[in-house]
Amino acid sequence: MTPSTPIRPIRIDNLQYANWSPELFAEMADAALSAVHVTICYHENFRETVANMATWNRYIETHPARLMHGRTGADVRQAHASGRTAIFYGFQNCAPMEDDIGLIEILHQLGGRFMQLSYNNQSLLATGCYEAEDPGLTRFGRQAIAEMNRVGLVIDMSHSAPRSTLEAIDTSARPIAITHANPSWWHAALRNKSDEVIKALTARGGMIGFSLYPHHLKDGSACTAESFCKMIAEAATRYGIESLGIGSDLCQNQPDSVVAWMRNGRWARETDYGEGSADAAGFPPMPKWFQGIRDFPNLAKGLESVGFATEEIDAILGLNWLRFYDENFTPQKKA
Amino acid sequence: MTPSTPIRPIRIDNLQYANWSPELFAEMADAALSAVHVTICYHENFRETVANMATWNRYIETHPARLMHGRTGADVRQAHASGRTAIFYGFQNCAPMEDDIGLIEILHQLGGRFMQLSYNNQSLLATGCYEAEDPGLTRFGRQAIAEMNRVGLVIDMSHSAPRSTLEAIDTSARPIAITHANPSWWHAALRNKSDEVIKALTARGGMIGFSLYPHHLKDGSACTAESFCKMIAEAATRYGIESLGIGSDLCQNQPDSVVAWMRNGRWARETDYGEGSADAAGFPPMPKWFQGIRDFPNLAKGLESVGFATEEIDAILGLNWLRFYDENFTPQKKA
Repeated sequence: MTPSTPIRPIRIDNLQYANWSPELFAEMADAALSAVHVTICYHENFRETVANMATWNRYIETHPARLMHGRTGADVRQAHASGRTAIFYGFQNCAPMEDDIGLIEILHQLGGRFMQLSYNNQSLLATGCYEAEDPGLTRFGRQAIAEMNRVGLVIDMSHSAPRSTLEAIDTSARPIAITHANPSWWHAALRNKSDEVIKALTARGGMIGFSLYPHHLKDGSACTAESFCKMIAEAATRYGIESLGIGSDLCQNQPDSVVAWMRNGRWARETDYGEGSADAAGFPPMPKWFQGIRDFPNLAKGLESVGFATEEIDAILGLNWLRFYDENFTPQKKA
Repeated sequence: MTPSTPIRPIRIDNLQYANWSPELFAEMADAALSAVHVTICYHENFRETVANMATWNRYIETHPARLMHGRTGADVRQAHASGRTAIFYGFQNCAPMEDDIGLIEILHQLGGRFMQLSYNNQSLLATGCYEAEDPGLTRFGRQAIAEMNRVGLVIDMSHSAPRSTLEAIDTSARPIAITHANPSWWHAALRNKSDEVIKALTARGGMIGFSLYPHHLKDGSACTAESFCKMIAEAATRYGIESLGIGSDLCQNQPDSVVAWMRNGRWARETDYGEGSADAAGFPPMPKWFQGIRDFPNLAKGLESVGFATEEIDAILGLNWLRFYDENFTPQKKA
């Protein structure tokens, strides 16, 4: 039986870390998301990461009408054709590979498709955006990038520092990603990216996913859809529409203990508040027009209202990431 | 029964990584070593490090006439009085604490007394001496130093880079150590230490242990005892005799596969030769006058022949480290 021609366009949210539940899987369907890149771990080591992947494998097994495991771009098309959501696994730090370059291929074999080289702090590979100094890629980092290129595990520099990010863009033989961040010319924040970084990224075929996390937004939780979508319009002018996507950074239904884990891992005895503060240590409230997964369609409305055409909206909200998936999730072709 | 008054002075070798065997324990006795700081791990993670400590615990249990577990300076005196060698555990990298600051106290409880903040490469805490850039201590590194100070796990910067070392000296509330290295004014090598670093170290009560590893020696394997001991005499003039000791870096009876592990760990797919080269990838031959543990007494002869007095020789070959052990292996006194 051939599936009926899909009516709705392919939509992809390239970064979420929700407190997953059947209710949220239903929201993914309501939002017509054909693919979601889910965060599998922050500071979890290899064994803990495997446990988290096993949990996701079980979600996928027990919700076959809603979910499927995404490994390639073709899986997104299959999910779209069958009204499901393809779940792609990613890691917000290099913690799951520990100090072992051989684990890069293992993580890819288990479904990993994005891995950040550092998360806020210095890692074994690269520097995070909250360190005072950024010496660029380490010796290990250069070898890890070559191995990630080889197997098809995409380098993500969302939480990395500028010099490390520029060096990763230059060192990587394949395009890399900033899965969830915004331009610092729109909202200055250590987690947002300079014009120089986004230019270098996109000039090499890389993608940026715009984030809805309030600390990355101009006016924070009060940011309007118009302001956000005008930022995207300006980015399209500067970098070309084909490099733009969404990585909402939704942490829907997560308790504040989770943001404390993200910020402090096991490394801090003195509490680190990251983008927050002692007075506002928890998750910030989401903008009214983007409360959760179900509000993804508001992005299409917002983009339309600032003048984007339908095919441009479809590119930003899904087809650009789909092209990137097609090109970067499989092993490197030998020269 | 009171032990008889010891005739031989207390001798300490503050860094060895031999291929341990009953024969080498007998050599420790022949050399009259009352204490040896043994390397428990390089790149081993926490669980692997615990396994290595269990191996050592078993050596100590099964050789009670030769060995005892060293935890404090008092243990050195007890070993000396009973003609045994106190074995002190140390780590040449921060790999055993993984990313968990809570493991610092655990490692100390298990007997760890020295831990390097980095080994050649960038670590989560500090930079290694073979990285192209040295940004100094990381955010995690500063918290780890405070915790190491608290529990009495001594910071060792033997394989770290200069700025990281200077910042560790300044940041640590307690004296730190360079357990095995030589001055770069005697032999220029990335692993040896500048006058500035040794001055800062010793001005804060820190200790340097001179290394017999040929890559750290002037003229390498051909280095003479006279040259080595004259270097110590010059160091005594520059830094004061009370900060000087020995950390021989003996890797006696180890196969070349071990030096490959030290250099490459699990991080390198492209072989790293460290201080060696593709043509000379193995352990270098030791100097004729310092072939192994049994030759430790040759240091006393060499120091005497360059003019040191007996009490100065006893300080350099043991009592300085003993004083350092007395002061730095127990928890920090509360202010």
